[in-house]
Amino acid sequence: MPSSTVPKALTFDVFGTVVDWRGSIIRECRALGAAKNLDVDWAAFADAWRAGYRPAMARVRSGDLPWMVIDALHRLILDEILAQFGIHGLTESEKTHLNRVWHRLRPWPDSVRGLRRLKKKFIIATLSNGNVALLTNMAKNAGLPWDCIFSAELFHHYKPDPETYQGAAALLGLEPGEVMMVAAHPDDLVEARKSGLQTGYVHRPFEFGKRAARPMPTEQFDVHAESFTDLADRLGA
Amino acid sequence: MPSSTVPKALTFDVFGTVVDWRGSIIRECRALGAAKNLDVDWAAFADAWRAGYRPAMARVRSGDLPWMVIDALHRLILDEILAQFGIHGLTESEKTHLNRVWHRLRPWPDSVRGLRRLKKKFIIATLSNGNVALLTNMAKNAGLPWDCIFSAELFHHYKPDPETYQGAAALLGLEPGEVMMVAAHPDDLVEARKSGLQTGYVHRPFEFGKRAARPMPTEQFDVHAESFTDLADRLGA
Repeated sequence: MPSSTVPKALTFDVFGTVVDWRGSIIRECRALGAAKNLDVDWAAFADAWRAGYRPAMARVRSGDLPWMVIDALHRLILDEILAQFGIHGLTESEKTHLNRVWHRLRPWPDSVRGLRRLKKKFIIATLSNGNVALLTNMAKNAGLPWDCIFSAELFHHYKPDPETYQGAAALLGLEPGEVMMVAAHPDDLVEARKSGLQTGYVHRPFEFGKRAARPMPTEQFDVHAESFTDLADRLGA
Repeated sequence: MPSSTVPKALTFDVFGTVVDWRGSIIRECRALGAAKNLDVDWAAFADAWRAGYRPAMARVRSGDLPWMVIDALHRLILDEILAQFGIHGLTESEKTHLNRVWHRLRPWPDSVRGLRRLKKKFIIATLSNGNVALLTNMAKNAGLPWDCIFSAELFHHYKPDPETYQGAAALLGLEPGEVMMVAAHPDDLVEARKSGLQTGYVHRPFEFGKRAARPMPTEQFDVHAESFTDLADRLGA
């Protein structure tokens, strides 16, 4: 890319882009199921948990629910799906611990290595709908070397509201065009672009499992990468 | 300290506590002065710049000025003291660069080593009146390994307003008593304690220069340390 368009900061979507939420939840829930003697399709459970997420955020974005952080939304959904999957008998403290599985998600194999390289050349920050505590605990747990933790929580707006993309650039004292949004989700990038950010697509075909492999998107972004290390290559980091 | 009171996170004052603002500004301004043939008492210049800071923040806190980040307040003060010290002929881009000397402040010799140790045991975050961009650029430049950048800018309240201390704990999903405020300034710690935070005093006797060495404070805090490495020792990190 021409030097005039080299970004100064990269902001990252997290769930699905940096961490494998589905694999992490299935793994931890299987262990819970084995310990508790529960016969549950944990892949379906993980998918149901995640499927509740957009409608819950939409209720906050529309004003139907007051501002709530993702930890609280995850708990609302968890209580519903525990009933739905016939999982009874978890104590309150077990439910609290389970809800925080989102703080313990594991990175894709290339995430930490790629971020370490990118950090040498750019400011690297989260820009996630996850709350600050969730993202901070996840980073400590997984060794994600963020310079800054930016979250929808700071703006009281969830992505893809423009306040999030523009707010992150403003906090960094940068023009939107000096920031690149990095995500595995075309819709996130399309909205970031509307706010003037550069866009970096990273392909995570197996976010929803090997059986639901995702094709490459048809949209064109400023950079397309196969992994975070590939992104570092492409950005000269 | 008894294990029940071991904090989960440490929030740090930055100017004077983590970085030597006075020495850094004098050093950089002396180089500017030599290049520009300016005969100025740069220690007095640095002190005047810093002296303008509290009154400027007080005007924001009282509502006399609208919310402004520290970069903007520093610039207001800079324009006054440039005239006051008879420094003329700097271009706009030179003034902008000089104003950002606060993004380039150097840490005290023990800061990075101590923070690296503390980071292994605790969440470590800034809690500074400096704006997010300033703190982020400073961390990149000086190698400060923060987990989170918390700033008055996130709360639109300057320390010592309680919104800052309580806001940082809330963003971490912690009770105020699970967070320790670390500062070289007793007034910051006294206000943090009023909000329920634990308090860690680190002695920085030469913040205002060797000729203005500061005695140990008479107030008692939860921990008193001579340096960040001493703080790590005392907190078992």
